[in-house]
Amino acid sequence: MTVDGTTLIGLIAAICTTSSFVPQVIKILRSKRTQDVSLVMYAILTTGLFLWLVYGFILHDIPLILANLISLTLSLSVLILKLKHG
Amino acid sequence: MTVDGTTLIGLIAAICTTSSFVPQVIKILRSKRTQDVSLVMYAILTTGLFLWLVYGFILHDIPLILANLISLTLSLSVLILKLKHG
Repeated sequence: MTVDGTTLIGLIAAICTTSSFVPQVIKILRSKRTQDVSLVMYAILTTGLFLWLVYGFILHDIPLILANLISLTLSLSVLILKLKHG
Repeated sequence: MTVDGTTLIGLIAAICTTSSFVPQVIKILRSKRTQDVSLVMYAILTTGLFLWLVYGFILHDIPLILANLISLTLSLSVLILKLKHG
């Protein structure tokens, strides 16, 4: 496999894992229900993504900063919606 | 900040984002309810984590392989539980 193929796999992987939270946010906005969504999961995940963002800023790593800024926003949205709807 | 401090932040970030799915798996195993959990989210996330794993194998990157193997197992567990409980 060429280097370009490998980079493409990494890019598609990053797009998938970053954007995957969008359908969860949309689902909650529509149903206003979060009973089965784990509060502890999104509390730990949001903390982890914030630390990844700090790590990216320290290393001045733009892709790491951008990817985690998007993920953090989405994870924080689910967390806030969970705290709102219970 | 020293290099050790930066590495520590990255390690804690990785532990948080990888382990965050454990409480969601436990919650579903206890309640047997997944109605509010997004099927599309876990389908995209599982695909993305699988691609990260492939990317790690191509680059022979052990931390990438280990972290994504754990995340993939947990994400796939939520996906299977979602398909089971609906």
